[in-house]
Amino acid sequence: MTVSERRLREDIEANARFGALSDVDGHGRTVLAGTEPNGRARDRLVTRLTEVGLEVTVDAVGNVVGRWIPDGADPSAPAVATGSHLDSVPSGGIFDGPLGVYGGLEAVRALQEADRDLRRPIEVVCFTEEEGQRFGNGLLGSSVATGRRSVSDALALEDDDGATLEEALEHIGFRGEGRLDASEWEAWLELHPEQGTILERRGAPAGIVSTITGITHCYLEVVGDADHAGSTPMDDRTDALAAASEIVLDLESAADRVTAEESPSAVGTVGKAVVSPNATNVIPGAVRLGVDIRDVAVSSMETLVAELEASADRVERERTVDVTITRPYDISPESMAERCQSALASAGESLGVETISMHSGAAHDTMNVARVTDAGLLFAPSRDGISHNPREWTDWADCTAATNVLADALGRLAAE
Amino acid sequence: MTVSERRLREDIEANARFGALSDVDGHGRTVLAGTEPNGRARDRLVTRLTEVGLEVTVDAVGNVVGRWIPDGADPSAPAVATGSHLDSVPSGGIFDGPLGVYGGLEAVRALQEADRDLRRPIEVVCFTEEEGQRFGNGLLGSSVATGRRSVSDALALEDDDGATLEEALEHIGFRGEGRLDASEWEAWLELHPEQGTILERRGAPAGIVSTITGITHCYLEVVGDADHAGSTPMDDRTDALAAASEIVLDLESAADRVTAEESPSAVGTVGKAVVSPNATNVIPGAVRLGVDIRDVAVSSMETLVAELEASADRVERERTVDVTITRPYDISPESMAERCQSALASAGESLGVETISMHSGAAHDTMNVARVTDAGLLFAPSRDGISHNPREWTDWADCTAATNVLADALGRLAAE
Repeated sequence: MTVSERRLREDIEANARFGALSDVDGHGRTVLAGTEPNGRARDRLVTRLTEVGLEVTVDAVGNVVGRWIPDGADPSAPAVATGSHLDSVPSGGIFDGPLGVYGGLEAVRALQEADRDLRRPIEVVCFTEEEGQRFGNGLLGSSVATGRRSVSDALALEDDDGATLEEALEHIGFRGEGRLDASEWEAWLELHPEQGTILERRGAPAGIVSTITGITHCYLEVVGDADHAGSTPMDDRTDALAAASEIVLDLESAADRVTAEESPSAVGTVGKAVVSPNATNVIPGAVRLGVDIRDVAVSSMETLVAELEASADRVERERTVDVTITRPYDISPESMAERCQSALASAGESLGVETISMHSGAAHDTMNVARVTDAGLLFAPSRDGISHNPREWTDWADCTAATNVLADALGRLAAE
Repeated sequence: MTVSERRLREDIEANARFGALSDVDGHGRTVLAGTEPNGRARDRLVTRLTEVGLEVTVDAVGNVVGRWIPDGADPSAPAVATGSHLDSVPSGGIFDGPLGVYGGLEAVRALQEADRDLRRPIEVVCFTEEEGQRFGNGLLGSSVATGRRSVSDALALEDDDGATLEEALEHIGFRGEGRLDASEWEAWLELHPEQGTILERRGAPAGIVSTITGITHCYLEVVGDADHAGSTPMDDRTDALAAASEIVLDLESAADRVTAEESPSAVGTVGKAVVSPNATNVIPGAVRLGVDIRDVAVSSMETLVAELEASADRVERERTVDVTITRPYDISPESMAERCQSALASAGESLGVETISMHSGAAHDTMNVARVTDAGLLFAPSRDGISHNPREWTDWADCTAATNVLADALGRLAAE
């Protein structure tokens, strides 16, 4: 299998010009779903898919599919699919998403040239709004393609200005028909930058994901008394920030302990803290904390949630603050299919590309797809683990190596 | 000495209508310096001062002075002055400031009726922008009247929209001439709500301030690495919020210890924390903390600053974050004049109003005045210590008792 680094790079660099940021350190772009840069990026993808003979369809929520029926394949056989997304976070990088979409296209081009004996169609997919920066929580297109959300619910989603997804898609010409149904696929593979440092630290050019971690978000409202910082004695305070600080450190300690004793992949993060009134000379009256807990095992996630609750109880008791916890977001860990992991591992082996088995702490469209068909996720290294940032980087040689593995694995699955 | 609760209440309630807020719990007002509500409040003050025979002048920065020369007094003798401010914080209460201005006027009215033998003029003062919510850090009018800031510097101060103090004062008709010179006063007394709970907790209706605490503001920038909360293992994180949380708790512990061992009036507060990027699923990359440290003794303030620096050093070492500390705001404790404290104490005694000696943790215009002449500060109780809030409250009986003490003490000082 020989993918072309030149073609892959040309595609990713050309795509990077849509929504490109100037005056940033690195290569940044802002491509929110249904915006003009997203429309132009999609137009170019359709052109490139069509140029190499793929039949392009767009579904009602804007998911784009390019279908290739290899010579001798059964057009009615369930397809093997691959892809990712073209939208980005604000000031995101150029690989997160496009590597999987154009890596998929390049894999098809390489398979076309390799003249392998394939029995199934291969589809290259671009899902709508993976990042969730305009219309929701993310994984939007794949949630519709896997039946977790209805087409009508999705189309009615509104951005902050009240524009619906339907209007945005119509505006860029990507409000198609019907619904892409991922459950009809024989198998699915996604290539994505790791967004972490495991590959870099282990010196491996590619990672085969065994499990995508579950994610729980908890929000804590810590309420004390906002008083004058000068005229309120130390022994007469109910300082919400001091109480919240204990919770931040308790969660960190709990995650360190769970990592050491229970599950090395567990993580717990307080990523958000909003203080009010947030004035230097006023004792904080309330703090809202946003907590992110993930692991490959539900049990250790529940341990961390329990530790968080215990910490909240303790500070309520010891500091007389009120703490309320909500848990509005909770998704289970998702295991990747053995046959997809095997196909990727065999591909790496036959190509001489070292692969390691690892978990994914980040959510991807593959998380949704894995619920309806056999799915696999392949990681390329991220320099310094930097992600959602113009300084995101994956070396072209690593992009190429991973795309080779993807192409060979797609060929294996399509030959079955 | 008999001040009239009815007249005092009528003045404070009438003043409360300027900038009044509806739909709040309590009695709120927003009266920023040089705004239309501030102009109307000032107009009413001038009317009320004039009605009882005071000669009103307005200086270049809008400080208002009503001068009363008692029968038989020496018009050329240095005056005894009293007053406070009419501006408020956004959504402030109705007593903070107006109690001292209209309490001063009511004291003069009571002295006029009491027919005491007074040798000096008495002046009732309204300082411009005590709260610092539009043009700067606060204590603006008194800083000019005490020579800490020049008239021209003050007039050139700009609000967030680029309007200067001079323009704002001209707009409301309070850009006067010359400079009020507080150093010419024989003595100064200010009546103000406590903004704390010491009087309430000790069941005393009035407090005589011995010292106004010094204030230091320090700002800390804690810098870590903003990484993906899912794909960054616990042992590969530099979490700025966890580091900042340690600093918050270290300062609280240090203040508790200093309060117990060194100086019971010391306080240390982290009132402000701004996290970036502040997203639940991103490890915090930076946190900016705003720290407020106060005490009557410079030594314990320095102890707390040193403890803050030691905490920053420790988290830098242990967590590999970078912490920078700046200290842009630093004012020394200010002792009140013995003779002013004595006059207030004797007044309380002769009137049968219990007074206690206490410190002030809040800054007031008196802080500036004390640097140029003998000054005293009298506190009335604040219900639950609530301040800078529509729920601020001082019972009318307490307002009256404290105003009686103020009037009698002014009479004593003006008789000397």
